[in-house]
Amino acid sequence: MSAEIICIGTELLLGDILNTNCHYLAQELASLGIPHYYQTVVGDNLARIHQVIDTAIARSSILIFTGGLGPTPDDLTTEAIASFFNTSLEERPEIITDITKKFASIGRKMTSSNRKQALIPQGAQILPNPSGTAPGMIWEVSKESQDSLTILTFPGVPSEMKRMWRDTAIPFLKSQGWGKDIIHSQMLRFRGIGESALAEKVAPLLELTNPTVAPYASRGEVRLRVSAKAKSKAEAIALIEPVAQKIQEIAGLDYFGSDEESLAVVVCKLLSDRKKTLAVAESCTGGSLGAMLTAIPGSSQYFKGGIIAYANEVKTRLLKVNTTDLDQFGAVSDLVAQQMAQEVKQVLGTDYGISITGIAGPDGSTETKPVGLVYIGLATPNGQVSSKECRFGDRRERSLVRHLSAYTALDIIRRQILSF
Amino acid sequence: MSAEIICIGTELLLGDILNTNCHYLAQELASLGIPHYYQTVVGDNLARIHQVIDTAIARSSILIFTGGLGPTPDDLTTEAIASFFNTSLEERPEIITDITKKFASIGRKMTSSNRKQALIPQGAQILPNPSGTAPGMIWEVSKESQDSLTILTFPGVPSEMKRMWRDTAIPFLKSQGWGKDIIHSQMLRFRGIGESALAEKVAPLLELTNPTVAPYASRGEVRLRVSAKAKSKAEAIALIEPVAQKIQEIAGLDYFGSDEESLAVVVCKLLSDRKKTLAVAESCTGGSLGAMLTAIPGSSQYFKGGIIAYANEVKTRLLKVNTTDLDQFGAVSDLVAQQMAQEVKQVLGTDYGISITGIAGPDGSTETKPVGLVYIGLATPNGQVSSKECRFGDRRERSLVRHLSAYTALDIIRRQILSF
Repeated sequence: MSAEIICIGTELLLGDILNTNCHYLAQELASLGIPHYYQTVVGDNLARIHQVIDTAIARSSILIFTGGLGPTPDDLTTEAIASFFNTSLEERPEIITDITKKFASIGRKMTSSNRKQALIPQGAQILPNPSGTAPGMIWEVSKESQDSLTILTFPGVPSEMKRMWRDTAIPFLKSQGWGKDIIHSQMLRFRGIGESALAEKVAPLLELTNPTVAPYASRGEVRLRVSAKAKSKAEAIALIEPVAQKIQEIAGLDYFGSDEESLAVVVCKLLSDRKKTLAVAESCTGGSLGAMLTAIPGSSQYFKGGIIAYANEVKTRLLKVNTTDLDQFGAVSDLVAQQMAQEVKQVLGTDYGISITGIAGPDGSTETKPVGLVYIGLATPNGQVSSKECRFGDRRERSLVRHLSAYTALDIIRRQILSF
Repeated sequence: MSAEIICIGTELLLGDILNTNCHYLAQELASLGIPHYYQTVVGDNLARIHQVIDTAIARSSILIFTGGLGPTPDDLTTEAIASFFNTSLEERPEIITDITKKFASIGRKMTSSNRKQALIPQGAQILPNPSGTAPGMIWEVSKESQDSLTILTFPGVPSEMKRMWRDTAIPFLKSQGWGKDIIHSQMLRFRGIGESALAEKVAPLLELTNPTVAPYASRGEVRLRVSAKAKSKAEAIALIEPVAQKIQEIAGLDYFGSDEESLAVVVCKLLSDRKKTLAVAESCTGGSLGAMLTAIPGSSQYFKGGIIAYANEVKTRLLKVNTTDLDQFGAVSDLVAQQMAQEVKQVLGTDYGISITGIAGPDGSTETKPVGLVYIGLATPNGQVSSKECRFGDRRERSLVRHLSAYTALDIIRRQILSF
């Protein structure tokens, strides 16, 4: 028994819209514990919709359709499903009444093309649409235990689809026995280790079956998703916890948080817990680090502000970077990074000062300093000043070098705070 | 002859990630004029990937795969394709060399699991990945005119996939004769007018058939896409140009740019053309405006830097905001915005100074000052200082209020420069 999502609409094939419906339904199926192995997108074309249904019924027992329920001639979903199963459509008076009422409430009259939306295959049940004119259906085409097949249809408008899913489809699916076994996941997040290296470290855990452990590479971090199937969320968490614990032990400081805990969130929490404040001095990131930190509500508790020292004259004037050092070592150097961090801490009167100076590219590299070379300076409450040289590689795009620079700066503060 | 997109990844079935790759590829296929009738998503499972290939080859002649090219055991795409066509995999030394080099450039060693990424079916051509370790392939499985089949594979990481598509896949597909009847679009971008108001102003143009004109609402701006179908890009542009011209006349200053010309790009170009410099003073945006401006390569010509004055003490200390005014009118006020803009221009010695101070929410509102209230200050080369009150609405999310604040600041500078 498994479900398949079938999205119908030529606008999806032309790339006019992003398929967020499929994403939503996938999450919902997972949380109800309904296995789901395929998603298909097909255009507004009768023969091709038939072809997709033919493929789907051979492998799935619940078909969930979105799109193609509108009043125009290119909306074919209901018609295509009915004709595939050689079933005639019948006009349901209760739908006509409902549509008429909805048009009246906005001072309009129902058009003749809307009559089409009242047609449902014989034997199917109406899946009401409280917010739009297009109802869906729940059709138990065949209830035999061996070969059972259930079809659900939804309009393509995401807000209407979601409401109908919540109000009617979930209770129906639960009445069929689903939602007893749920799938719950925890996403563990890592910085400072590559995907393949982490996968090798936790290799035996990747063989587990419940919970399962799967690695992902993301922008500037690596993730391990631990997913458990259980009777309840609490039970799933109990299965996940020891495995997540084990992974955290193996990964040590490379593990920084789970789920919604981004590096910025983790740093903000650490600063807040320890009642420490932070200021930033940014050159090549131009304010991105400050933007990441202040994206989190309540950041004024620990983030005071900073200086965007993009031009060298700002580095010398506002951050008192030594002009001789600047000339001798260049703006992208350990020494300048350290001076920037120290001075921004000093000027803003904070506990920590962190700085970023580097070559984001595509221009600005020299023979000895390639694109992707970035120095991150850190001044700590006890007066120590240090810096780290990062080489993010000269094939990386400007936006990625900047992102990795800000991300690494956050990770440096995190490790600094945690090591005390 | 038609193409089919096949996305591989259990994370898509679990709803962990949104399938933006499929959206991008659908747009690209449309613009090359390649027919495309089906999209399929399947998990990391050998038998099911085989089943999907079996269905796809019966109806499509170009199969485009994304995902499943990573180094871990659940990455099965290449292996599944090769085994489906009974072809053995061979290790390509040039890939090993490339991966080793990439690891070395970031100071790491290639792990043994990465060797897997060097395996490509016999007869397939490497589709190079300039930014990541996972190359794709172009495999002309069969070249007979009747039943030709070509397979292209891409990693799931969107930035890598897009670059590989642009650099290698497009030239390859064009060499196969695609892209002759092309669809070319120009996206016109507007700020300062709503979608429905703009649509009403250009209503007769929305009825055109070649080029077509379609409105879209985007984050902080409105867009009109003008699309033409023609034998060549030059012909399409000739069809688009008079319509785009007409729209620009109707929209006046609300039109700011086309295609990749974001507000930041336009502002940077204006500053650069007129040899003027800019500094920013940011409170609630915390560096976002600086980050937007410095996202553009070469921004050091006109962007000097700025001060992130998140805490009030930074406003008074570094931006000399008058403490009496701060107490009397609050940090979120016309007067404070003006003082911030004037002082940052002064301290950094630039032609323009721009400031942002506001309540991004969810906390921080008072009875008279709701979430979404933002003041933007501007100091100009002739010594004038002004400010604008914006009310972005208290139902908007923190991130959107911050985005709209930075966006409006850019638009204020743009209009200021253009009006002289």
